[in-house]
Amino acid sequence: MNTACRSLLSTVGRRALLNATRVQHVHKAAAASSPAEPLVQGEPNGPSMKTVIPGPKSIALREELAHIQNSDAVFFFADYEKSIGNYLADIDGNVMLDTYMQISSIPLGYNHPDLMKLTQSREYQALSVNRPALGNMPDRNFVQRLHGALMSIAPKGHKHVQTMSCGSCSNENAYKVIFIWYNQKLRGGKPYTDEDLQQCLVNQGPACPDLSLLSFKGAFHGRTLGCLATTHTKHVHKRDVPSRDWPVASFPKYKYPLEQNVDYNAKEDLRCLQEVEELFKAYKNKGRPVAGVVVEPIQAEGGDVHGSPNFFRELQRITKKNGAALLIDEVQTGGGSTGTLWAHEQFGLESPPDIVTFSKKMTTGGYYYTDEMHMSEAYRIFNTWLGDPTKIMLLEEFVKVMQRDNLLDVVRRTSSTLEAGLGDIQHQFPKLVANSRGRGTFRAFDLPSMEARDKFVNEMRNAGVQIGGSGPNSVRLRPALIFQPRHAELFLDIMSQVLRSKF
Amino acid sequence: MNTACRSLLSTVGRRALLNATRVQHVHKAAAASSPAEPLVQGEPNGPSMKTVIPGPKSIALREELAHIQNSDAVFFFADYEKSIGNYLADIDGNVMLDTYMQISSIPLGYNHPDLMKLTQSREYQALSVNRPALGNMPDRNFVQRLHGALMSIAPKGHKHVQTMSCGSCSNENAYKVIFIWYNQKLRGGKPYTDEDLQQCLVNQGPACPDLSLLSFKGAFHGRTLGCLATTHTKHVHKRDVPSRDWPVASFPKYKYPLEQNVDYNAKEDLRCLQEVEELFKAYKNKGRPVAGVVVEPIQAEGGDVHGSPNFFRELQRITKKNGAALLIDEVQTGGGSTGTLWAHEQFGLESPPDIVTFSKKMTTGGYYYTDEMHMSEAYRIFNTWLGDPTKIMLLEEFVKVMQRDNLLDVVRRTSSTLEAGLGDIQHQFPKLVANSRGRGTFRAFDLPSMEARDKFVNEMRNAGVQIGGSGPNSVRLRPALIFQPRHAELFLDIMSQVLRSKF
Repeated sequence: MNTACRSLLSTVGRRALLNATRVQHVHKAAAASSPAEPLVQGEPNGPSMKTVIPGPKSIALREELAHIQNSDAVFFFADYEKSIGNYLADIDGNVMLDTYMQISSIPLGYNHPDLMKLTQSREYQALSVNRPALGNMPDRNFVQRLHGALMSIAPKGHKHVQTMSCGSCSNENAYKVIFIWYNQKLRGGKPYTDEDLQQCLVNQGPACPDLSLLSFKGAFHGRTLGCLATTHTKHVHKRDVPSRDWPVASFPKYKYPLEQNVDYNAKEDLRCLQEVEELFKAYKNKGRPVAGVVVEPIQAEGGDVHGSPNFFRELQRITKKNGAALLIDEVQTGGGSTGTLWAHEQFGLESPPDIVTFSKKMTTGGYYYTDEMHMSEAYRIFNTWLGDPTKIMLLEEFVKVMQRDNLLDVVRRTSSTLEAGLGDIQHQFPKLVANSRGRGTFRAFDLPSMEARDKFVNEMRNAGVQIGGSGPNSVRLRPALIFQPRHAELFLDIMSQVLRSKF
Repeated sequence: MNTACRSLLSTVGRRALLNATRVQHVHKAAAASSPAEPLVQGEPNGPSMKTVIPGPKSIALREELAHIQNSDAVFFFADYEKSIGNYLADIDGNVMLDTYMQISSIPLGYNHPDLMKLTQSREYQALSVNRPALGNMPDRNFVQRLHGALMSIAPKGHKHVQTMSCGSCSNENAYKVIFIWYNQKLRGGKPYTDEDLQQCLVNQGPACPDLSLLSFKGAFHGRTLGCLATTHTKHVHKRDVPSRDWPVASFPKYKYPLEQNVDYNAKEDLRCLQEVEELFKAYKNKGRPVAGVVVEPIQAEGGDVHGSPNFFRELQRITKKNGAALLIDEVQTGGGSTGTLWAHEQFGLESPPDIVTFSKKMTTGGYYYTDEMHMSEAYRIFNTWLGDPTKIMLLEEFVKVMQRDNLLDVVRRTSSTLEAGLGDIQHQFPKLVANSRGRGTFRAFDLPSMEARDKFVNEMRNAGVQIGGSGPNSVRLRPALIFQPRHAELFLDIMSQVLRSKF
C-alpha cells in the first residue's frame, strides 16, 4: 500500500465518504418542503390511467413499426402535444407522472411555455430550416449564444467548450482530444516525417500510436465503437462487436447505509484505486500507455453506483501523476438534477477535470475542456454540423428559466422529500426496497432481483408513474428540474400503494 | 487473373465504364436547359459583395470565438434569416450564390417557404421542445412519418430503416449491424456461455471477436473512432489517434476524358478489385476476417473520385462471395443531387446493398438495411434519441416538395448546363481546369495544385460564389436541389471571369 492510498483511510477520507451519496444542502433556508404552486401551469393533479400499458393503440402501432425496424423496446407511443410539465400522455388516453423524462433528458418537463415561445421566433425557425455547418459558417448569434447557454454554466475553471450532436459523439471526440494531447506530449514536439503522415492515412506507423483509455467496470459511455470500448454494463451492447484491449478497473461497490459501513467502503475505494495504479503500470509495460481515464460521477446505466468524493479526488491525483487526462462524463448527471449544475462539483477536486462531456438535459451535446486540451490547429476536431444551434437556443432558454425559477433550489427541496420518503418506504418494506441513494433528484434504490425490479417498473407504469430501471436490479428516478416536492409526495404515495398491493 | 476479373475487360465492362461519371438522362424531354422561373421566390438576381471575405464583422467575431474554441476553420459568420434560396448572406452585408450548401446538406436552399411553414406547426414546436427517446416512447405520428419521409424514397429492395442523429453515428451503428450479423453467421447459432458474456463486458473473449471492415484509400466515412479507422483522406483527421489494423484497398483512379482512356481505366478497376480479393484472403489468414466492405458511391472528401458501375458490381460480387456485407455510404451522395435519389442506383447492382447510410441532405441521419441485417433482439442498436423527429418532419416536407416541383428533373437539367459549361471552360483554360466529372449537380474539377485550388475557392468567394474544395486539388459543387440552369449559368460566368482576371 503506497502513501497516497493509505491517506484514503484518514479521518478526512472517512468523513468524505459519508457524503458520497448525499447532496449537500447549500441553501439551508430552502430545504424545508413546502406546498408551493406548480412551476408549470396546466398540469393535472395526478395521473389518469385508461388502459394497461401498452394500450391497444400503442400495441397496434408497435406491430406496424415492427415491419420497418425492431420495435421491441417501445413501451408505448406518446402524445407529446397533450403532455404537460411532469405529465406524459400516451395515444391511448393515459396520462402518467414522468420521473424518467426520456431517459434523463427534457430538463423543464413537457411543453414548457418559455421553450414553446422560443420555437415561435423567426430565428429558431430559420436555424431549424437552415442548419449551419457550425465550424465553417456559424450563425450571427453563435458566439453570444455560446456565452449565454454554455459558458454561463461552465464547470469551475473551464473556459472552453465544443458543441456536438449527442452524448456518444461528445465522448468520441473528447477521447480524440485526449489522445492527441497525450501523444503530442509524448513526442515532445518532434514533427512527423512525410512517411509517418502517409502511413497514418492507412492506420499505420507512429502517427497512429498504440494508446489506451482506462474505464471502469459497470461504466456506460455510449455505444459507438470508441465509446463502446469503455462501456461495460450489459452484453446486449457488446456481444459480437470487436473491441479494444484497454484497461478496465473495478469501481467501488459500497455497502449501505454508508454510516454503518465506513471502514468497508473506504477499503473498497482503496482496492479500486490500487487497481487503477496497477493498470497504469501494466499497460505502460505492454506498450499501450493509458492516455486518459474516463469516469461517470455516478455510474448511471450501471445501476446508480456511487463513488465517494475522496475516491474521485484520489483518482484525479493518480491520473495526473501518470501524465494522463481525466474525463468526467456528465452526459447523464449534468444540468442540475444532482443538486449542482455538475455532479463533480460535489467532489471537491483539487483542479478542474481536463474534459467534461455533456448531452441529454443539456439539450446539445458537447464538452468543456481546459486550456491544456486546446487544439492549436483547425480541423483536428470537426464534423459537418458540430451540433445544432436550435439545441443551443433551447439550452440558453433553459438556463434562463433555471435561474429565474431557482430550479436548483427546487431540486434540493425535492431531494429532501425523496430521501426522507424513500427512507420511510425502505423501513416499511425491508424485504423489497434497499440501498436508497442519490444526489439531488438523481436517485435510485434496489429491489431484490431483476424480475422484481422489472415487475415494479411495469406496475408503477400501470399505476400512472413512468420510472426507469438500471443495472441488474435498480430503479432510477430521473425527473425534470420542475419535479417539485408535491410531485415527489405523489410518487411516494403511489409507490407505497404498488408495493403494498402488487408484491 | 481470375475469370471474374477478366470479365471486367469485356465489352459490357467498357461500356459501363463510360457511364462512370455521367448521369443518365432518363427524361430526355427535360434535358433542354430553359430560363424557367426561380423555384424559390425572393431570390436576388445575383450575388452582391460589400467586402472581401471574411469581412470586418466576421473577423471580429472569429477572434471572440477563438477565446472559447479553435475558430480557424470559420470562413465567415452567416445571417441565416436574411439568406434565401441559393443565396447565403453574411453579417458584413455580402450575399453569395451558394454552390456548397453547408458542406453538401440543405436540400431546398435557405428559408424554403414550405419548410418554414412546417416549423410554425404546433407539432413541430412540441417535438422540438419534447425531444423523445424514439426507441422507447416514439411520438404518435412516428410510424406514419417513417413511411412518408423515409420508406417512400427507400433504395430499391430496402424495407427497413433506422434513424440516427448524424452521419458518423449512422456509420458507427451500421458497422455494428455488420459485425453482429457476420459473427452470428460465423457461430452458426452457437450460444455464448455465461463466461463468454461476462468476459465481453470487459472487451475480452469470443463475444468480442476479432473482425475487420475493408475500406478504400481516399475514403471518408466520418471521424468518430470506428468511422475514423475507415477514413483515409487527410492526416489532420488521423494523426495521434489510435486506429485499427483493418484492410485498406486502392480505389480506382481514372484518367479523363473517360472515352480516351477505356483500357487504362478498366485495368485500374481490375487492379483495385484484385487488391480487395487479396485483402479478404490476407485478413482471413491473419485471424481477423473481413465482415464487411464500406464504400462511397463517389469518394467525396477524397476529391470526387469516381468508380465505374462495373467496379461496384464486381465489388458487390466479391463481397458476397466472401460472405461479407456491402455498406454503401450515401451520407454525401444521397438525397437527389446525383440525379437519382441514391447514387448507387446508377450502378445496376445485381441486388440491393446490405446497408445504405445517409445524413446531410436527408436532414436526419440513419441507414436502410435488408431483411438479413434485421436485429431480432431489442436494444442491440439503441441510444437515447435515435435521431430527432423534427428532422424527420423536415425530410418528409422535403420529399413532398421534391416530388411536387420535379426537383430530380431540375438536377438533371442543371447537370447538363454544368457539364457543357465546365467542358467549355476546360477547353478555354486548359492549363487551369481539368478532369471535369460528376453525376447530376454532384460535380468537380481539378486545378493544377492545392495552392491554385485554395486561391480559386477564395477568389470565387470574393466574387460572390461559395464553393468547396476536396481532395488535394479538386473543387466540388454541392448545390441544393433548387439550383437551376439559370444559377448554373451565373456560376459559369463568374468562374470564367475569376479564371480570366485572377490567374
